[in-house]
Amino acid sequence: MAKSPEEEHPVKAFGWAARDSSGVLSPFKFSRRATGEKDVQFKVLYCGICHSDLHFAKNEWGFSMYPMVPGHEIVGIVTEVGSKVEKFKVGDKVGVGCMVGSCRSCNDCANNLENYCPKMILTYNSIYYDGTVTYGGYSDIMLVDEHFVARWPDNLPLDSGAPLLCAGITTYSPLRYYGLDKPGMHVGVVGLGGLGHVAVKFAKALGVKVTVISTSPNKKEEAIERLGADSFLVSGDPNQMQAAAGTLDGIIDTVSAVHPVLPLLGLIKSHGKLVLVGAPEKPLELPVFPLLMGRKIVGGSSIGGMKETQEMLDFAAKHNITADVEVIPVDYVNTAMERLAKADVRYRFVLDIANTMKAA
Amino acid sequence: MAKSPEEEHPVKAFGWAARDSSGVLSPFKFSRRATGEKDVQFKVLYCGICHSDLHFAKNEWGFSMYPMVPGHEIVGIVTEVGSKVEKFKVGDKVGVGCMVGSCRSCNDCANNLENYCPKMILTYNSIYYDGTVTYGGYSDIMLVDEHFVARWPDNLPLDSGAPLLCAGITTYSPLRYYGLDKPGMHVGVVGLGGLGHVAVKFAKALGVKVTVISTSPNKKEEAIERLGADSFLVSGDPNQMQAAAGTLDGIIDTVSAVHPVLPLLGLIKSHGKLVLVGAPEKPLELPVFPLLMGRKIVGGSSIGGMKETQEMLDFAAKHNITADVEVIPVDYVNTAMERLAKADVRYRFVLDIANTMKAA
Repeated sequence: MAKSPEEEHPVKAFGWAARDSSGVLSPFKFSRRATGEKDVQFKVLYCGICHSDLHFAKNEWGFSMYPMVPGHEIVGIVTEVGSKVEKFKVGDKVGVGCMVGSCRSCNDCANNLENYCPKMILTYNSIYYDGTVTYGGYSDIMLVDEHFVARWPDNLPLDSGAPLLCAGITTYSPLRYYGLDKPGMHVGVVGLGGLGHVAVKFAKALGVKVTVISTSPNKKEEAIERLGADSFLVSGDPNQMQAAAGTLDGIIDTVSAVHPVLPLLGLIKSHGKLVLVGAPEKPLELPVFPLLMGRKIVGGSSIGGMKETQEMLDFAAKHNITADVEVIPVDYVNTAMERLAKADVRYRFVLDIANTMKAA
Repeated sequence: MAKSPEEEHPVKAFGWAARDSSGVLSPFKFSRRATGEKDVQFKVLYCGICHSDLHFAKNEWGFSMYPMVPGHEIVGIVTEVGSKVEKFKVGDKVGVGCMVGSCRSCNDCANNLENYCPKMILTYNSIYYDGTVTYGGYSDIMLVDEHFVARWPDNLPLDSGAPLLCAGITTYSPLRYYGLDKPGMHVGVVGLGGLGHVAVKFAKALGVKVTVISTSPNKKEEAIERLGADSFLVSGDPNQMQAAAGTLDGIIDTVSAVHPVLPLLGLIKSHGKLVLVGAPEKPLELPVFPLLMGRKIVGGSSIGGMKETQEMLDFAAKHNITADVEVIPVDYVNTAMERLAKADVRYRFVLDIANTMKAA
């Protein structure tokens, strides 16, 4: 008979969990496994709130398991390491993102692309090697195989750096993979939310000229003044869009709602690339003529491998890139989720776990 | 006042033209310009019938100009060259494909990608530098700037080689550009028509394993026995498609009707490429999750530049690649168009211009 979450493992843990598709989170006693020989145990300090936490908590993608402890932008400090752990010692600052396991033997794993491994294990709402459910970073303690733990750069802030573990790598990886990282290039960023605002920062740090494309004219000032974008287009203004036709080498499209891609394809040059990192639930309309006539491509990208995640954190530290965050106490999480659903945050909530999570 | 097609230029020419959107072709007297200093004048020997000739003749893309002389798979023998022509002399065998002009100064032109030049001039139904309408290869004589003329390899058959000038380059170019040309790779070809059957031949000659994907189970034997494909999938058979999931490095999709891409995305590996070379009039449905989860791309491609067209012809000659053709007399052209509309040809009609086109 399966043991309860509180009894199945030896290490007591405490977090906040969603109990059903209402998505409402509440205090939750559970347990973590004992530190295995390759495991890193760490005390959670901060955890970002990603929009996918909201999707998962409310079962909007249809495969949620309850109770669920969300959270995959996790920063902490190592409290114990297994006998064969090589990269970390007690007291090290560490980060964990969206995944905690993979097969370690397929082509993708061999190429440092664990994120595309068909057996990739998510940080929460997934089944671990031992058959138990994974619980995320809205909790006081984490246990993760060292392969899926990133070294936290000394000068990278813990709170505002946390969202880089998902939002950062999700935008940094496609800029690199699709070759939109060459100084002097001109890249568009569609959508100015959690993903989009760090996409702008990474692109600028890479020496790329950045145009933000948004439905909201009132985001122009913050895009340019606060985030350093070079220009701004209102996607619903045909004159602006026409004037910018054929000017972009590529676009990072962070929008997760269904939206038209034809105007975006019009903005990119021949041989340019429209890269989707948001996941609309329904198919988009793909006009084929613009793809043929300009040899354009529409591609996707999903987070990044562990090697690239470390590279991204080191790059962020070097270039002083963090997310713009609102640090909140844990008992504010349900209000934060409501605000997040209305896009009422600039641009990421981060839970102050260490200082505000109190075991019931 | 604009002169008539018969009077506007000094060189008498004769061809077959569509007069209206019925698409019916009939004998047509017109004229060609005198040989300019960079021009090659040649006697047309053979001209392939491309499916786009049918679209244009019937004004199915909405920008047809009548009278229209179609034809952009043209092979002939040089009869006169301009004073500054460097690459050709009288008696040379030559080929002309889909374009006869471009701006020669943009980035694409500078990179031997005249086919993506925004000012590219089509071989027919386009406006030439001098303001007159271009007429294609369903005619006895052609005049083309030498830059847009390809040298015909000695051992490449004139009749069955002609379709390579459109169908050949349209499939060869994306195999190269999208990196689907590495020996040992596994590439799918969707649709076994004029484009698809030469795609199979080029891919095989490149050392690639080829799977043909078709709606018609009865094409299996010819795909494998006649064209040399390694395997065959019936796209409407979910069991076959499921068994082949994740096996292809990429796909050349030649289908120009609206069709589902989700099953095709399922066939390709992570980081694989679905390349569209057919042009459905309406948008396709693009599911985003498969793009993200496997970092897959959907791209397009349209013919190829002149340098690559020459490379393709030389490659075809070296590897004995030609189209499978049905050579027909000119007065069969309307019947051929009707049969083409029903896909009743294996796989390309070629007009025997020199032997069967008689001036009225």
